[in-house]
Amino acid sequence: MEFDIPPRSETAMAAARDRQESLTKPPGSLGRLETLSVEIAGMTGDPTPSLESPVITTVAGDHGVVAEGVSAFPQEVTAQMVANLANDGAAVNALSGVPNAKNLIVDLGVAQSEYPGREDVIVKSVGSGTANIAEGAAMSEQQARRAIEAGREVVQEHAVDADVIGLGDMGIGNTTPSAAITAAITGADPKTVTDHGTGIDDEAFERKVAVVEQALEAESPDPTDGLDVLRSVGGFEIGGLAGIALEAASRRIPVVVDGFITGAGALVASRIDERVTEYLLPSHSSVVSGHAVQYEALDLEPLFDLEMRLGEGTGAALGIAIYQGACDTLSKMATFEEAGVSN
Amino acid sequence: MEFDIPPRSETAMAAARDRQESLTKPPGSLGRLETLSVEIAGMTGDPTPSLESPVITTVAGDHGVVAEGVSAFPQEVTAQMVANLANDGAAVNALSGVPNAKNLIVDLGVAQSEYPGREDVIVKSVGSGTANIAEGAAMSEQQARRAIEAGREVVQEHAVDADVIGLGDMGIGNTTPSAAITAAITGADPKTVTDHGTGIDDEAFERKVAVVEQALEAESPDPTDGLDVLRSVGGFEIGGLAGIALEAASRRIPVVVDGFITGAGALVASRIDERVTEYLLPSHSSVVSGHAVQYEALDLEPLFDLEMRLGEGTGAALGIAIYQGACDTLSKMATFEEAGVSN
Repeated sequence: MEFDIPPRSETAMAAARDRQESLTKPPGSLGRLETLSVEIAGMTGDPTPSLESPVITTVAGDHGVVAEGVSAFPQEVTAQMVANLANDGAAVNALSGVPNAKNLIVDLGVAQSEYPGREDVIVKSVGSGTANIAEGAAMSEQQARRAIEAGREVVQEHAVDADVIGLGDMGIGNTTPSAAITAAITGADPKTVTDHGTGIDDEAFERKVAVVEQALEAESPDPTDGLDVLRSVGGFEIGGLAGIALEAASRRIPVVVDGFITGAGALVASRIDERVTEYLLPSHSSVVSGHAVQYEALDLEPLFDLEMRLGEGTGAALGIAIYQGACDTLSKMATFEEAGVSN
Repeated sequence: MEFDIPPRSETAMAAARDRQESLTKPPGSLGRLETLSVEIAGMTGDPTPSLESPVITTVAGDHGVVAEGVSAFPQEVTAQMVANLANDGAAVNALSGVPNAKNLIVDLGVAQSEYPGREDVIVKSVGSGTANIAEGAAMSEQQARRAIEAGREVVQEHAVDADVIGLGDMGIGNTTPSAAITAAITGADPKTVTDHGTGIDDEAFERKVAVVEQALEAESPDPTDGLDVLRSVGGFEIGGLAGIALEAASRRIPVVVDGFITGAGALVASRIDERVTEYLLPSHSSVVSGHAVQYEALDLEPLFDLEMRLGEGTGAALGIAIYQGACDTLSKMATFEEAGVSN
């Protein structure tokens, strides 16, 4: 599995930095908007980038581990929510309006994978949900490869013209594999990166931690091998998200991570080709335990904390609005010279 | 000076809270977006509000105190930047694109108040800059009243159809009166709320603190009387911003504060009619010293910290994008029942 990911353009970043100094504002007064705009210039290779065609990919999958009672919602909700997303009824649909983003809804392996009358769901199913990681590997090596490849195809077939891609997820039970991935790759104690999820009780939480510990011990995935981690304790949508990030990076498209599940996808991607991290941008700091550990491992500092924990790409959508602002100030403001303002 | 500011609608807030519980997401998973959307419902009286017509008012004025060497930029920059703002070349113009906001550029008392060929500057000049507060009161009581009134007129004449108003400022030297206002109203030590501004040295900073201390001692404004504080140590644009906030609140239009100068305007407004605070919404946490003290006094918690310090309404513009998202999720998401999702 090979990706050809170029480095950031030093030329574009230097030009963007110079331009920032010439714009009609005290130097540095736009704070992180300035440094982030320079990073995006480096990613895109364009010293005056604009983010006019954002795409948010909400990737769904099911998880055999729900049999262990780790989630407060039944598995059927994944498919129901995919239909709701396709029907523009979910949170990320509402939030995508502000950055004027296009949503792609992708089924990478939902158990109940039929969406009558909803042809806009991109179905690239790798299986009817993963196997239960309490009992063995989440998937075969072939499925892991296929999940990454499917993510790659999503970009190739539906997002080649995107100038930024936001990652998003939907999958009942997917905080459990995400915790296992995060513990496997960062070396963090499973207890510190396992979350209470959407409203489970203490007993279910203890069970969730035990499942993660047991799965990691049984499979002992190689933490430097993203594909092996994905195979052992991952999820189809998480593999798809990793594939999207890797393919986007190879096309110089910046990738905005969302919450804990997309963070797990980004970690997997970084252990398949670490150059992908040059194209990752943070969005919100989620209240899900373990999200901060992921950001630290990816060397990203979140933009804001609005105490969100929904997924779907909701944080990424808000983040893209901020990145649009960062690029617009860099690209559209007048210089001191143009405006005749004393410097 | 009377304003008729209604309380928030409890009915609309209760309906918005109920609706939040019925939407297709785990309860509370949108964090502060949920609570803020409920607040906006209360302000507007609409249980499903939308912010489709935002207006950002960038109000400019000059300050006699620049004679004391408290600013790194010359006074002429205020007028030059007003022209740049009217010409869509400034940061706030670039940032207003994302929330699709209309910018109003208002001259409340710029020294060099002529903008040939730029008829879209709203000129409501109260004087050619304030007097030097190192030597006496900033303005007469009549000018203070006129500044508030002018802000009121800006809303009445140009923003009656706005569904949210962002505050913004432009004025070389205006962190000094803002520090004095903040110290006067909150009781904070002038040293802790005086900022280095845009690149002044330690000596100029000491001078700035001394000016604030001296002005407050000489005029000893009544901290409970916003008009008296404005007259003693204020600025024309700061009075205009207070007037805009008060008039917006009386029309149930939410008001998004920006950085330190708009914070001073909000504090003045709150000491003219404290009911205005029911209509104030935070945006960013600025790196300007004293901004946090203002937020605390206004009982607001900032949305994000991007290390900005520019003013003009730049933080408010980004904040409005987030509030649009908050309102869109409340108003546009499907309910569990509508979407057929198991709850």
